Amino acid sequence: MHPSNDSVRETGERGVIKRLARRLAPGREVSVGIGDDTAVVRPSDAASDWALTTDPVVEGIHFTAHTEPERIGHKAVGRVLSDLAAMGASPDWLLVDLVAPSATPVSRLERIYDGIQALAGRYDAAVIGGDVSGGEPLQLHVFGLGRIPRGTALTRAGAQPGDLLYVTGELGASFSGRHLDFEPRVAEGLWLRAEGWAKAAMDVSDGLAADLFRMLQASGTGARIRLESIPVSTAANALCDARSPLEHALQDGEDYELLFAIPASRSTAFEKAWAKRFPLRCTRIGEMTEQTGKAEAVDENGNHHPMREGGFEHFRAGPEKDPP
Amino acid sequence: MHPSNDSVRETGERGVIKRLARRLAPGREVSVGIGDDTAVVRPSDAASDWALTTDPVVEGIHFTAHTEPERIGHKAVGRVLSDLAAMGASPDWLLVDLVAPSATPVSRLERIYDGIQALAGRYDAAVIGGDVSGGEPLQLHVFGLGRIPRGTALTRAGAQPGDLLYVTGELGASFSGRHLDFEPRVAEGLWLRAEGWAKAAMDVSDGLAADLFRMLQASGTGARIRLESIPVSTAANALCDARSPLEHALQDGEDYELLFAIPASRSTAFEKAWAKRFPLRCTRIGEMTEQTGKAEAVDENGNHHPMREGGFEHFRAGPEKDPP
Repeated sequence: MHPSNDSVRETGERGVIKRLARRLAPGREVSVGIGDDTAVVRPSDAASDWALTTDPVVEGIHFTAHTEPERIGHKAVGRVLSDLAAMGASPDWLLVDLVAPSATPVSRLERIYDGIQALAGRYDAAVIGGDVSGGEPLQLHVFGLGRIPRGTALTRAGAQPGDLLYVTGELGASFSGRHLDFEPRVAEGLWLRAEGWAKAAMDVSDGLAADLFRMLQASGTGARIRLESIPVSTAANALCDARSPLEHALQDGEDYELLFAIPASRSTAFEKAWAKRFPLRCTRIGEMTEQTGKAEAVDENGNHHPMREGGFEHFRAGPEKDPP
Repeated sequence: MHPSNDSVRETGERGVIKRLARRLAPGREVSVGIGDDTAVVRPSDAASDWALTTDPVVEGIHFTAHTEPERIGHKAVGRVLSDLAAMGASPDWLLVDLVAPSATPVSRLERIYDGIQALAGRYDAAVIGGDVSGGEPLQLHVFGLGRIPRGTALTRAGAQPGDLLYVTGELGASFSGRHLDFEPRVAEGLWLRAEGWAKAAMDVSDGLAADLFRMLQASGTGARIRLESIPVSTAANALCDARSPLEHALQDGEDYELLFAIPASRSTAFEKAWAKRFPLRCTRIGEMTEQTGKAEAVDENGNHHPMREGGFEHFRAGPEKDPP
């Protein structure tokens, strides 16, 4: 089925993860394993569930040699906080594995850590350990640990046909700068979980058109998306290239917004409560259907178009891999 | 004090960690922060303390392009299990951040994961998440999480003058192969903590002559080492180079043995209990003194020589960085 000489490039990031996950035995006290925004464990000797996640930022992929150091640190921690937020977990502790070329000025690393501390501190998370080693290119691997009241994690799997789909903020063209400055939706994720609004949630990191399908697969639902309701970012609207602003909003990665499902019966109350609680835009973009794993897009003329899994995978993508 | 253009190379691994740690605010519920084998947190809503640690293995530093994949996986997990063992923690959950060049055959990665699973499974630890991304060189960043009964972590700080110093196994010339196959001392670390034998412990990863000073600094003690008692490995004895086998035993890194302190009054009972419990060699190498931060070596003629902090730091070392 898999010729042994398949490369990482040919197999794609998600294909590689699937193949590697098959080599691993299931663990004890594991509530959510590989495949959601974070793993969740349920220790027998603790009152809470624990969300565990890790994300890399690598020079040449997630930032460049010219990126301001504070923004590198911000992004490194922001990606982890975004994953924890998508589970409704409070971010508690972080560890950072730093790999740096030996010629790197330590002052540059200090500025990266200033960016880490500024964002982590804002959400009362602390960096309590890690490792530093020499190597190229410059990269950070951040491990995050958060808590969730037992059994309340917002996985991707809880949505049902008829639920309404919402997305926070605006989508598209994150690579023009926002991917380094985004605010992880920690407060929003905690609130969606604590107030019992969301039945399923995830963060949009590989583009809505890719991530949506992951929620559909996990929940066993389909989806119908209203294209004119997609919140296209100002940056995407300002781009002049071969793809439309809407395509950017659907296909670009690194939005770090939350995608979540709310029961239709609660949508009016939810929208009111959200507007009262957060200044952040929150948009209803469609609804869950019974067509497991299938999504369709409805355009402004009411025409239905089947959607296919889009967005980017890190190994396969060309330009999206290297934000300027 | 630190000119802003100091590089990572000039500052050294431990110097960099110190400077970066200063940029970070202390966290909540943290029992042991940066500077021990692992961080330890004491969550208010859990019965246990939690040990958290992370270690990288990078091609060209910790293994080569020719290293058998299973051994890469073994080493990646072994380093983390060794850190957890040094705290007396049971290894529970692991996450793996994998960075792989896009031309890597997936079958090679599968074999790395087979090595990971074989070792993790032996100690009932499970890989429950992680991330895969494209990049060079091949590297794994492993995050480990283990539990310790509240307040019983074996830090480096608990030794007192008069305590006897022991080391497990044999030291030196790990780079001739053992660094890829070592057995993390998980069972031994758990037993030393659970039976209340050890007052302080750490794993020997940068060479005894370097790591010893870290325990002295943490415990506020000095040490006197009997050179003829150092357990020099067969591999170190077999080397023919400019350094003596004893120098290799003191200065080479990557032994992944445990160094620990036992009250002198319990040493006879301890040695008996150890011999009954473990086939592994365990050697008394000296004792703690009152000379804070100072160590001396006593040779076979009874002459005393002051010791200086030796061993290797990853940024600074030449040959030891690149085991064959």
